[in-house]
Amino acid sequence: MAGTITQPTSRTRSWWGWGWADAHPDDAECAAMGALLPGTLARPLPVPRVRDLGIGGPTVEPPQSLAHLVTSDPGDRAAHAMGKAYRDVVRALRGRPGRIPDLVARPTDDRGVADLLEWAGDRRIAVVPYGGGSSVTGGVEYRGDAHRAVLSLDLTALGRVLEVDTEGRAARIQAGTLGPSLEDQLRPHGLTLRHFPQSFEFSTLGGWLATRAGGHYATGRTHIDDFVQSLRVVTPAGTSSSWRLPASGAGPSPDRLFLGSEGALGVITEAWVRLQERPLHKASAAVSFTRFADALRAVRAIAQSDLSPANCRLLDAGEAALSGAAHDGSAVLVLGFESADEPVAARLGRALDLARSHGGTAGTNEGSGGDAAVGAWRSAFLRMPYLRDGLARMGAVAETFETAATWDRIPGLIDAVRTEVGAAALKATGHPATVNCRLTHVYPDGAAPYFTVLAAGRAGDEDALWDDLKAVAVEVLHRHRATITHHHAVGRDHRPGYDRQRPEPFALALRAVKGALDPLGILNPGVLVD
Amino acid sequence: MAGTITQPTSRTRSWWGWGWADAHPDDAECAAMGALLPGTLARPLPVPRVRDLGIGGPTVEPPQSLAHLVTSDPGDRAAHAMGKAYRDVVRALRGRPGRIPDLVARPTDDRGVADLLEWAGDRRIAVVPYGGGSSVTGGVEYRGDAHRAVLSLDLTALGRVLEVDTEGRAARIQAGTLGPSLEDQLRPHGLTLRHFPQSFEFSTLGGWLATRAGGHYATGRTHIDDFVQSLRVVTPAGTSSSWRLPASGAGPSPDRLFLGSEGALGVITEAWVRLQERPLHKASAAVSFTRFADALRAVRAIAQSDLSPANCRLLDAGEAALSGAAHDGSAVLVLGFESADEPVAARLGRALDLARSHGGTAGTNEGSGGDAAVGAWRSAFLRMPYLRDGLARMGAVAETFETAATWDRIPGLIDAVRTEVGAAALKATGHPATVNCRLTHVYPDGAAPYFTVLAAGRAGDEDALWDDLKAVAVEVLHRHRATITHHHAVGRDHRPGYDRQRPEPFALALRAVKGALDPLGILNPGVLVD
Repeated sequence: MAGTITQPTSRTRSWWGWGWADAHPDDAECAAMGALLPGTLARPLPVPRVRDLGIGGPTVEPPQSLAHLVTSDPGDRAAHAMGKAYRDVVRALRGRPGRIPDLVARPTDDRGVADLLEWAGDRRIAVVPYGGGSSVTGGVEYRGDAHRAVLSLDLTALGRVLEVDTEGRAARIQAGTLGPSLEDQLRPHGLTLRHFPQSFEFSTLGGWLATRAGGHYATGRTHIDDFVQSLRVVTPAGTSSSWRLPASGAGPSPDRLFLGSEGALGVITEAWVRLQERPLHKASAAVSFTRFADALRAVRAIAQSDLSPANCRLLDAGEAALSGAAHDGSAVLVLGFESADEPVAARLGRALDLARSHGGTAGTNEGSGGDAAVGAWRSAFLRMPYLRDGLARMGAVAETFETAATWDRIPGLIDAVRTEVGAAALKATGHPATVNCRLTHVYPDGAAPYFTVLAAGRAGDEDALWDDLKAVAVEVLHRHRATITHHHAVGRDHRPGYDRQRPEPFALALRAVKGALDPLGILNPGVLVD
Repeated sequence: MAGTITQPTSRTRSWWGWGWADAHPDDAECAAMGALLPGTLARPLPVPRVRDLGIGGPTVEPPQSLAHLVTSDPGDRAAHAMGKAYRDVVRALRGRPGRIPDLVARPTDDRGVADLLEWAGDRRIAVVPYGGGSSVTGGVEYRGDAHRAVLSLDLTALGRVLEVDTEGRAARIQAGTLGPSLEDQLRPHGLTLRHFPQSFEFSTLGGWLATRAGGHYATGRTHIDDFVQSLRVVTPAGTSSSWRLPASGAGPSPDRLFLGSEGALGVITEAWVRLQERPLHKASAAVSFTRFADALRAVRAIAQSDLSPANCRLLDAGEAALSGAAHDGSAVLVLGFESADEPVAARLGRALDLARSHGGTAGTNEGSGGDAAVGAWRSAFLRMPYLRDGLARMGAVAETFETAATWDRIPGLIDAVRTEVGAAALKATGHPATVNCRLTHVYPDGAAPYFTVLAAGRAGDEDALWDDLKAVAVEVLHRHRATITHHHAVGRDHRPGYDRQRPEPFALALRAVKGALDPLGILNPGVLVD
């Protein structure tokens, strides 16, 4: 069966698109969406089928001792060929996916991971670590032909919470644990990791760690980096197991070297992570702004206060309209507070005061008016990736990318991305494009803008068109010294931008580490270093 | 003049002991302190003199082009021979300091640093980066004889705040800037780095970064790591300059590799750091506990709340007595709250409620009763290193060390350190020793215990006695999986413990990085890797 995952679920994952196969918009919905954009196809591209890919047998066979961990099932292999970026979906729709891995392995313990790495090293087989497969930057596919074969190393059979320290609020969790299962296993203890990226349902702890994922929360502790007490990482040079510590000043942090290593330095198999009590108190509201510049100043003031909102998402006018949060050209700031500890109404009130003092208008009834906009935005948020795939079926370009920069660069950066990507899309397609922006995470010293691009496609060549538009965006980011990625990782798609951003001595250091830990160069080749 | 620093001051630094030469206790004070401990000397060891060291000429001369940056003045060299650990003070008092560097260089820009590294590489001269020289772990001395000569690279001529982004609350600051000068330069902008380690007066931004210093604040953002936007690091393989970003998910963090690198991978020359507004609202109080175990539970509850106290120091009965915070055998919890933003009395009130619910007794008048204990503790805190040197002159052992561990290990760890180090001291000297503990930093998942050891010495051999006691402590730490250092760095003194704690694949990685960035092995040899 295609895209099977081993953690319990009764639903089937889509092998070619986002999430659950049964949650995708049907042909009529796709057509209705397509009609809203100029230059789309008359009818949706058909849902692709694995059998049309003509997947042959694998070029290698595992040894008898590992055979029970490995499958060559074509559906499984197709589902592990790529991540879930727009360009991955297009390639699947157009019948030219990335290289199909020869084998998919699902080790059930560290020993299995180590044995697979040893075998792969002996045979010069590329090993691509795979968690939930939700990469949107080409992080879980193989490109090129420098290796004899490709093994997708699916970690989801390592899906258990092994130990919970209730008093110290921490748990030892296997890296292949998917978001919902992780929270299900913690719930009886009254604790939560409280890490909810948009991909939550379809991504794993190990994936979050390997890509330095950003959570749903807008401020404070939201990056998975901050939740790590210790890591266990199987590398071709041995297993690294750091001590479980609340803090340490003993040399450069071993964990921080593996956080963000994207499977290129080792395979993260488990971690002790910090947990929190489940929040009891919540309050949220929406504030509208006539001028985006005012909204930016309001958000900065809130980010620099002591208030620490759980949600502080600023939607520009286009994004607010797209998500149904506002339809009058206003920008909308979605504010939310949470605490396990004490009521949060006062904090919300102070944040609203700050927003008003910068020109914002909060609904007269904060409870209901705000909640409606918040609710509309939340539903749209979870549905977005499915809609993106529907638009892809209509031949449209529909993709997002994110970055982060210091406050001094934010207004110019956002303007430049809108203007230059919009102009490039118009020039390439003859149709005006939509380039929206929201801030997903805010910091005292800067923010993370997240852009949505909706544009007419170029039939049969939509992924190349997107690559062109993205290249324009990457130039703008580079010019503004905005990071190539805030929380989507580098993968293969961001390598050129990453190589220009990374200090050269750090590149030397990373190459040296790669040589020491993965001397045969089998781990996720092409990611981070060559 | 011995121990000259280039940043403006009218006072003279002690070449052999902590801080200012004129702040040391005089002979009478030393004798009075010594009388409080059994087994001390009848009168204090004399203050050591540079001229008694018989320092000869340097074995190398700098080239003409670098001569203006370099001195071979004996007083300057003596002051750069060691850090300020108890064992350094004893070695100075006993006339056998660590190897005296041949030269002291004070570069005034990156170019100077790079040129000095190039010259040193050509001549196989060891380069020991030196900020304020306050290392208490042997971080700024040279041991061994594998190099032709030793150059102490004093960074304090790089002492300026170069740029302030008031809106984004950040500044670009040269690494050699000492704490007071850094705050003086920020003050006109209404901003503060708010990083106040005990060594604040005598340590630099670069030293804090290279050793992952912990600030004075007990919770929340207190480690210098969290304040870094970007780093500039001159390495023998080129200069690394990371982008100034509020956050990034682009691969492993380049900055986190250099944070904690202790001068072994490169010389940090400047950083963009995050600033804060100066706090306007403050409140503090002290709570006493009859039972230390109750106090531990109270502190954990406060650390796991949303309250985030600026100060949350728990002094055990011995430490409370030593600092004058209590004399009735109580443990004392010193609580403080600060905000630039809103009054903090309510937060203090809630923290006191939590403390009371775990058996604590807050003074009936929180304002005055609490403040007296808080004030007593603060004065003692800043005076402690001077008193340590006074006790060293009396032949006593007086030293501290710190660690961190998860909450489940804290009670057993503290008990074991007290018992085993106390027993070892008694056995070695025939006199009972004092082993006190305070918690300096607390986390939702653990705490950082800081131990003070006061014991009789072993005349002429006090440093070796301390090494023996410390070895006992290190065994206890290792058995409890408590880090070899929470914020004092590894240096040379902690290498054996660090080597056992660090995961072996990370050691491989670090050695590879060392080879890539410092191929000739001239940077702070013996620190972190060989």
